[in-house]
This record gives sequence, C-alpha cells and structure tokens, in this order.
Amino acid sequence: MPERARYDVETMNAILDEAFVCRLATILDGTPIVVPTMFARIGDVIYVHGSTGSRMLQALSEGAPACVEVTLLDGLVLARSAMHHSMNYRSVIAYGTLEEVHGPEKMRAMEALIERIEPGRWMRVRRPNRKELAATKILSLVLTEASAKVRTGMPIEEPSDLELPVWAGVIPLVIARGAPVADDRGIEALAR
Amino acid sequence: MPERARYDVETMNAILDEAFVCRLATILDGTPIVVPTMFARIGDVIYVHGSTGSRMLQALSEGAPACVEVTLLDGLVLARSAMHHSMNYRSVIAYGTLEEVHGPEKMRAMEALIERIEPGRWMRVRRPNRKELAATKILSLVLTEASAKVRTGMPIEEPSDLELPVWAGVIPLVIARGAPVADDRGIEALAR
Repeated sequence: MPERARYDVETMNAILDEAFVCRLATILDGTPIVVPTMFARIGDVIYVHGSTGSRMLQALSEGAPACVEVTLLDGLVLARSAMHHSMNYRSVIAYGTLEEVHGPEKMRAMEALIERIEPGRWMRVRRPNRKELAATKILSLVLTEASAKVRTGMPIEEPSDLELPVWAGVIPLVIARGAPVADDRGIEALAR
Repeated sequence: MPERARYDVETMNAILDEAFVCRLATILDGTPIVVPTMFARIGDVIYVHGSTGSRMLQALSEGAPACVEVTLLDGLVLARSAMHHSMNYRSVIAYGTLEEVHGPEKMRAMEALIERIEPGRWMRVRRPNRKELAATKILSLVLTEASAKVRTGMPIEEPSDLELPVWAGVIPLVIARGAPVADDRGIEALAR
C-alpha cells in the first residue's frame, strides 16, 4: 500500500526532526484556529514557543485541547487518470494538552529551538536574558497520542489506465537552502 | 516592520497559488483536528477534496467551523541573540464554513486541483468517470474572512547586539523539484 499509518517512534521522530515548522491547532471562542510555528523535540516531548501576549498560547496553557501536525512534502504523484493524482509525504499528528514550562526545562527547550534552526548555533549566540525569558512562553506537549502517516512511491492506477499514452510518475520535492544572505549591520566580513 | 498582516487580495492569492498543500482544521468530538490536504483556488473560492468516507469532510460539509491555513517558508532568520531567531514566511489564514459542491462546479474544481499539480495536466489525463466522481467529495470555502501575514528581511536585533562577533542573516529556503521519476509500468519511453 502506498499510504499507511505508522506508530513506531523512530518514524515519528525522524519526521519531527526534519521539519522546521509545525501547525498548532486549538479551539478559541468555539472556532478552530491553526497557526504555523517553530518547534523542537527533546525525547518524547515537543516544545513550541511564542509571546506571553498570545491569546492562543494563553488558552493552550490553560488546558485548551490541542492538535499538532507536521508534514514533509516529498513529491507530486502524477497518475494517468485525474483521480489518482496525489502527493508523497510524511506526516505526524499528535493530540493532547500543552503545559507551560519554566526554569531549566525552559532554557533547554530554547536551546533545542535554536539548534533546530542551525546545529551549533546555541553556543555562538547571546543567550536569553531575564527580561527576554519573561516575555516568552514555552509550552510542551508529551507525545502520547500521536501517529505518523507516510505515502511513498508511484501512483495507484486502474489496470486499464496503464495503456494510456500519458506520462506518469513522481516529481520529487525537497526543501533546498539558498546562499546565506548576511546582515551587513554588524561586524564586517564575518565568515559563516 | 519585518512582520505584518496584509489584507490585499493580490498578496493572498499569490500565496495561495504558490502552495501545494493547505492545512484544514475543524472540531471533531470537541477536539481540534488539523490535516494537510491538496487545494486549489478559483477566484475567491478555495476547494479541498477527499474521500466521501472521511468523517472530517462529512462534519465540514454539515457546517462544522473551519480554519484553513497556507504557509510558504521562505527562510531561516539567524540573529545575534537567541531570542530574535525567526523564520521568513508568507501565510494565509481563512475562516468560515465549507460547502459541498456538485455538477459543473465540482468538475471545474477537480480540474483546478489537477492543474495545480502540473499546469496543462488536465488536458492529458483520463477525466474522472461517474463512479470516481461519486467517491470524491469536494468542498468549497469562500474567502470572506481571510488575512495574510508576511515576514521578510533581516533579524530584529537589540542595538547592543550588533557588535557581537556572531554571523547573522537569512538562509533562504525554497521548494525545489528533483528529476522526475517515471512509472515504468506503462508505455515505455514516454517523454515528459
């Protein structure tokens, strides 16, 4: 089967560790809301962060139910029939309630969030000071109710469609990094 | 300001037309749920599709409140301080209720969904037959309550951080297409 649910921790962790953003959903005033946000995983916990002024994070830290979704888009799947066009992807969906973290766990989560952007970065940058820490809320979600879904490979086709004179296959998609663009306001000619 | 809300239709449409997937969120049994799904825009309407067996699509077509989110990740923003690390992105969030579409609008929506994967593809592939159409549900959302949010450019920095010996800037991210991989089950040597 090209598409199937997976529940092993290795598959889920690999997806979570490759993505730069997750989607965080909750219910606010009876309405669903979903926003993209940076996240990081440590063990079986994922962390998201935001401003202490965020109504959504406030509701979540007070126990509003949450859904966190992470998807890596791996390819466009072109079939010989319109109906069987699809996408190859790897995704994780997790449910639960988030908890605000404090103290050393909060600092470890910030480190993980920064390291997610660029490994080794935490050691090089200025760490958060007391005022910055106070202005930031970090919430954790323990991955107890989570599952992955993965689609790979070629299109499903009706047997009778295989003879159609239509190109079919997969166009791989990857997130590529362009050449870094330096911020020229600081010390000049600083090598990356 | 590097980050700001935008409400003009051109900005929103450009974001919607560049993305391959949206996130569709609703409330099911009192719990938020968000799933990635293909979509297409025609005018001020976006269309999503799925199986007629989907509980989520069933609830949406019965009027469950929806939130649709689309985000293009444009870059990693590396600041001299941990706190000011960020992402460049363009996103749209829309709210409303979805309606199931039928007849000619349903076929036009399917065409738009296929053309989104590869322009010109609808003319080349086998069109959906009656049975396939019956097994597919297409829902529409009119973009009345929608807004875009865009972050571009360099990191925000505290003035005193500008002297730190830390590289800062933006690492652009783009979705790149790899070499197409042909499905070899059909007619051989069919050129793309």
